[in-house]
Amino acid sequence: MLTLPTYDDVIAAAARLQGHAHRTPVLRSATADARWGAQFFFKCENFQRMGAFKFRGAFNALARFDDAQRRAGAIAFSSGNHAQAVALAARLIGMPALIVMPTDAPAAKLAATRGYGAEVVLYDRFTEDREALTRRLALERGMTLIPPYDHPDVIAGQGTAAKELIEEAGPLDALYVCLGGGGLTGGSALSARALAPACRIYGVEPEAGNDGQQSLRAGRIVHIETPRTIADGAQTQHLGDYTFGIIRRDVDDILTVGDAQLVEGMRFFAERMKMVVEPTGCLAFAAACAAGDAVKGRRVGVIVSGGNVDLVRYAALLAGD
Amino acid sequence: MLTLPTYDDVIAAAARLQGHAHRTPVLRSATADARWGAQFFFKCENFQRMGAFKFRGAFNALARFDDAQRRAGAIAFSSGNHAQAVALAARLIGMPALIVMPTDAPAAKLAATRGYGAEVVLYDRFTEDREALTRRLALERGMTLIPPYDHPDVIAGQGTAAKELIEEAGPLDALYVCLGGGGLTGGSALSARALAPACRIYGVEPEAGNDGQQSLRAGRIVHIETPRTIADGAQTQHLGDYTFGIIRRDVDDILTVGDAQLVEGMRFFAERMKMVVEPTGCLAFAAACAAGDAVKGRRVGVIVSGGNVDLVRYAALLAGD
Repeated sequence: MLTLPTYDDVIAAAARLQGHAHRTPVLRSATADARWGAQFFFKCENFQRMGAFKFRGAFNALARFDDAQRRAGAIAFSSGNHAQAVALAARLIGMPALIVMPTDAPAAKLAATRGYGAEVVLYDRFTEDREALTRRLALERGMTLIPPYDHPDVIAGQGTAAKELIEEAGPLDALYVCLGGGGLTGGSALSARALAPACRIYGVEPEAGNDGQQSLRAGRIVHIETPRTIADGAQTQHLGDYTFGIIRRDVDDILTVGDAQLVEGMRFFAERMKMVVEPTGCLAFAAACAAGDAVKGRRVGVIVSGGNVDLVRYAALLAGD
Repeated sequence: MLTLPTYDDVIAAAARLQGHAHRTPVLRSATADARWGAQFFFKCENFQRMGAFKFRGAFNALARFDDAQRRAGAIAFSSGNHAQAVALAARLIGMPALIVMPTDAPAAKLAATRGYGAEVVLYDRFTEDREALTRRLALERGMTLIPPYDHPDVIAGQGTAAKELIEEAGPLDALYVCLGGGGLTGGSALSARALAPACRIYGVEPEAGNDGQQSLRAGRIVHIETPRTIADGAQTQHLGDYTFGIIRRDVDDILTVGDAQLVEGMRFFAERMKMVVEPTGCLAFAAACAAGDAVKGRRVGVIVSGGNVDLVRYAALLAGD
């Protein structure tokens, strides 16, 4: 039986993050409010350090290491925001970090991860098992593995964003959160249940990768093939034991949106709110826009999860190429 | 002899704007700090209502109308952010607004101005004198003309952004502000001189349109042809009497940057700070980046003035087309 993290763990994480993570702004949009008839509160984690909420969970996890763990350092496998989050958190705390990344990861992400001072080990996605490789490296070097989402400290850290949002905006009627592996959704649910008990909590997945929705309906963790979607941060194949445990208990529903809706959301954010948001970061807002009466007249929280998107790709998506 | 607005006028403007203008966030960037060796504080007026600081000045001016003026409404000529600022401020206060715009203004700007409920009168840039037309319309309808920058209430309103910045960031060593007609630079100077007396204040113009720099050196207002630059918000031909009066007294220097530096700044804002910033909004930061020792080790305020840029054009600038 797993012991799920609680809101007390989120409070403890917030204390650890104080002075290290940005307290990101909660922005409003009169245009969005008028168009969809709601009062939206956008928690802008695209302005978080390294450009995404992932810094919160990684820093919280690494900050809890004991002396021996700190000396040996942290290891993670990721081709996305978690890699940079662990790398940056390790540098700030002062410990080694090793990130296992695919040989075909975008050069910009390799450079960013190395730029934060992490050692990068490359593996071939087609012939090597990254989890086995990572476990072997962790054992050889005595490093502590920090998974991208299914870890109580990671979940508690991610929950601090919704905590700040609700503290600043006041009680919400609904909260929309993007859902990949469930770290952000799970952590947000802990905060929302504690601070706004009546708030309806929605996880939002890409249509092509609705394993969370299937899992919630089946009552067990459903595994899927890597989905084809522009929401690269939500291409997970399954929830984790911790995240599913929280989600099945606390989340009201899991919604899906298509890639075209994500592009529309990205354009709205750029044109009307002057923010660069990565496709995954548009999931929550796209679902809220499609929710109709579920948001009308309501106070609606939207977590904008990140802004890390290659500029050339971003420009092409904006221009509709 | 003109009576220049003072910091007391900025304080009064701030009270009028309370609850109407956004208190925009002051963002930090560890990457910018590391790269240029300064501590930057970015006042993000691209997140202001209608996407630019211009809302502050327009609202402050319109909020001071007496009953008769309110009944007749406000008139302005502008193809840019001032048009939308007057239109939105008029709607919020509940008065008519008439905006004189060129027939070849971008469709998006016409639509946005009408979307805020303003009446738009079009004129032909090549055959008609917009100032004469505007004066005639103002007389016919008894409307009060609000110029885009050379007006004490407009200047005082624009000064509230720097006031908020310094109140939040603490005393600054240097403040960089984009310079077109001088409303934002003048207002910022009033706040900075009052709140951070030792702060060096820099106005920043496009290289191609350095009339302010020439004016400061000549000791009189120099007029130029409409400059060719992507900084469309700074294509003014001359400072005004009020703005020049403040600038010659309070501003330490006027700097210039080229269009290529603006594009670099725009990319930095998008890639590292996840913000959409219009070319004019990049002037201040581009000058600070080029300032070398003048910013090293210093606490540097940068006003990011706006984010209103056509998405297709923006995408092309990001992609380097």
